[in-house]
Parts: sequence; structure tokens; C-alpha cells
Amino acid sequence: MDCSKEKIDNFLRSVSFFKTCSEDCYGKLIENAFLTVHKKGKILFIQGDKSDRFYVVMSGWVKLYRETLDGVQPVVDILTTGHIFAEDTIFQNKEYEYSAEVVEMAEIISLPTSLLEKASEENASFALNFLKHMARKSSAQEKKLESMVIQNAPQRIGCFFLRLVPQDQGHKSVTLHLPYDKTLIAARLGMQPETFSRALKKLMDETGIKVKGATVEIDQLDNLVSFSCIACSSGFPCKNLTTCSG
Amino acid sequence: MDCSKEKIDNFLRSVSFFKTCSEDCYGKLIENAFLTVHKKGKILFIQGDKSDRFYVVMSGWVKLYRETLDGVQPVVDILTTGHIFAEDTIFQNKEYEYSAEVVEMAEIISLPTSLLEKASEENASFALNFLKHMARKSSAQEKKLESMVIQNAPQRIGCFFLRLVPQDQGHKSVTLHLPYDKTLIAARLGMQPETFSRALKKLMDETGIKVKGATVEIDQLDNLVSFSCIACSSGFPCKNLTTCSG
Repeated sequence: MDCSKEKIDNFLRSVSFFKTCSEDCYGKLIENAFLTVHKKGKILFIQGDKSDRFYVVMSGWVKLYRETLDGVQPVVDILTTGHIFAEDTIFQNKEYEYSAEVVEMAEIISLPTSLLEKASEENASFALNFLKHMARKSSAQEKKLESMVIQNAPQRIGCFFLRLVPQDQGHKSVTLHLPYDKTLIAARLGMQPETFSRALKKLMDETGIKVKGATVEIDQLDNLVSFSCIACSSGFPCKNLTTCSG
Repeated sequence: MDCSKEKIDNFLRSVSFFKTCSEDCYGKLIENAFLTVHKKGKILFIQGDKSDRFYVVMSGWVKLYRETLDGVQPVVDILTTGHIFAEDTIFQNKEYEYSAEVVEMAEIISLPTSLLEKASEENASFALNFLKHMARKSSAQEKKLESMVIQNAPQRIGCFFLRLVPQDQGHKSVTLHLPYDKTLIAARLGMQPETFSRALKKLMDETGIKVKGATVEIDQLDNLVSFSCIACSSGFPCKNLTTCSG
């Protein structure tokens, strides 16, 4: 096994999505996997393209977006370590439903969708695990919708940060790394950049977190939790995350 | 087969979710299905309850909602004919993730989740069809999130109406029946009731639709489509609906 395959193998074994793959199927996936380092600005695929590969983020940030008829580009999501994307295109006419662009230097593993389709058809326990993954994804999306309606702007930013935090309660102090371009997070949260700036300042004042450039320092996780999670039906630890630990 | 079972059978055969059930499994589902007419205000289940049944709406309206720690009740969705709910609880610790309340007199079919679980485990083509259903659901949720960010308030109401319209382009003129209580639709769309009223008036002025009580008359579907769908990445007919025809 070459060095890159070993790195892919080590990482994918930590991703729960693959844990019910048969050894045979997993072996074929690794055999056909590529790990690529992409610079900021790299377009991975465009909405409507034929979807022959799906992706796992090892590090960095990726933006998923669409385009409306009047030319606006809504941000579907911004993804980082452990997130999987385009995995459900095999059930969606085998076309990408959104476009994907690297927004901070990223290591990305790509894998053939054909093997995913084969595994879903032939391996009942893999299909069931895939269903669990989709149910978690659906639930996480519901929570995002709820957050959009119920939480105020500072709470929504706090919620976005908390979803990136290790979810075991042992962590009281955490440092997060964000994309440099904060307008992306604003867009993902449905805020104008000015609203985002004001709301982030209020969040820092209320919870004591520090944001320096692309780094967020959270000294007292509890403060952030009690500020943001009071306006959520889920609470903390957050259920139904869709990263590898989720 | 008694009259009620025949009615259930006729209806469920039109719901694509069940189409890959084996005859054996489908027979057991019908055998254990109940059709109940519920009055407005009936609580079907509460978030956190053990989920032993899942549901299909035959007619009427049902509200799905949660409760946040500070006592607000976000509306997750409002559902009508052909919508399935609580079908994915079998992958979610077998607990209802939201509460469900009948908001307009409704005919609702309930079915045991245990049979659903069994079918997903034993029947690969049913599991695949379930995966397709979840992928459509996930995609529909993404579109709702997008709508919340990109569309203005009148466009969002128009989008809500268009999702209830038969999606084949042949229909130029359509009448829809809504729940009487419009604050529900406002809540589902993340609007204050006053914003909803103003936005609905603007939508009527711009597109010529008429709203009388609980009835919406759409004479020129094209007007509504060009008004609302310009701020959407999907267009019309709307993809990824989660009703029986979707």
C-alpha cells in the first residue's frame, strides 16, 4: 500500500459511514480512492454534471452552492474535516445537485459512486447504515431550518461553532479554525455580512469567546452552550451531526 | 377485506414509498394498518415518545413541531395528503424526534414501524427505495433552507403554494385548500403573522391569485411560477417533493 493509500485508509476507517462496508467492498473503495490537495478556488464539480465520484473532506473547507434563475448563488453548506458530500447523488438521477468549490486549501478524498451503489444494492447492512446516515442528515437539516426560524443571529453563529466542537462533554476549552472569508459563514447562515459582523461582536461580548482572524478560542464552552442552545429543541451535545464522529 | 382496509389499500398503492414492498410485507402492513379520522387538536405523539407507529396523511393537515429549552415551539413542517411522517425514527433511537398534532380534521393511516424495520433489513430493493425517499427528503429540506435565505417573503409563500400544486405542466388553473389557521403557514415559513399578511397581499397583487378563507385560486399558474421560481435553483416543476407523487 503506498503512502497516500495508507493515509486514506487510516482516515476512512474513522468515518462511521464506511464501517459496515464488507472488507471486499472497502478494499475496492480504497483501491479506487484518490487523495488530492486542492487550492482555494478549485471547482470540484458543477450542479448538473454527471456524478461519478463522491467526496470526503480530510482537512480544509469546501463550499456547496447552487445558482438561482436570477443569478444568486445560495450557499447550501460549508464543510470541513469528516464531512461527506455528493454521496446521495446515486439516488438523484446520478447528477450533482449542487456545485462544490474549495474555499480554503483542502485535502479531499474522492471515491467512485459506482462502488457505493453496488454496496447499497448487495450489502443489506451497508444499506441500513446508509439509511441511518441519511436519517441523521435529514434531522440535521431540520435543525438548521429550526435554527433559521427560532434563533437570533448571535445564537445562530454560536450554534454553527458548537457544531464544529468535539461533542463529548469533557472539553471545556476549545480552539476552532474557520475559513478566512467570514462572508461564507454569513451566507450559510442566511445573514448579510454587516448583520454577521454585528452579531459576532454581540456573541463575543455575551459568551467571552475570542475570534482572531480565522481562529475561534472558546474558553468556557458552557457559556456558549447556555447562550445558544436555550433557543434550540436539541440541546448540547448536539444530536444528528453529520461528520465522521456523528 | 373490510371497507376500511380496502380504502387503506387503495390509497397506499398510490404512494411510491410502498411500491417495492414484497407482497408478503405489504400484506402484513395492510393487516396492521389503521385508518383513523382525527379532529383538530388531536396530539398523535409527543417528541421523545417511543416510536412504534409511523403515519401517512390521507386528507387534512398535520403539524410537526418541537419545543426549545426556552419554551418556543418551532413548526418543523405542516403536512397534507400523501405525506409520510415518523418513518425514519427506526434509525433514530426509535423515539419520535418531534411532536405531531392534527390542525385540520384529518384521515390518517398509522402503520407499525417494526414491519418497516423488518422490510428494510430483509428486502434490499425496499431498502434502496427507502434510501431514494430519504435522498428526496434531504434534497427538499435543502431547498427549504435555500428558500429561507434567498426568496423574499411573498416568493416564499408562492413557493409553499406551488409545492402543493400537481406538478405536471398541464394544469394552468388550480384550486388549493389550506389549513384555516394561516399563522401555521407563517410559522412554517419563519414569518411573523403580520409579515405573512403583508406578503400574502403583495403575492396576490403581483400574481393575480385569490385567497378566500382556506381556499387559494390560481388562475394563471405561470404567473405564480415566474414570480416565485426566479429566486430558486430548482425551477418548476419542483423536483424532490416528498408527497406520494414525488
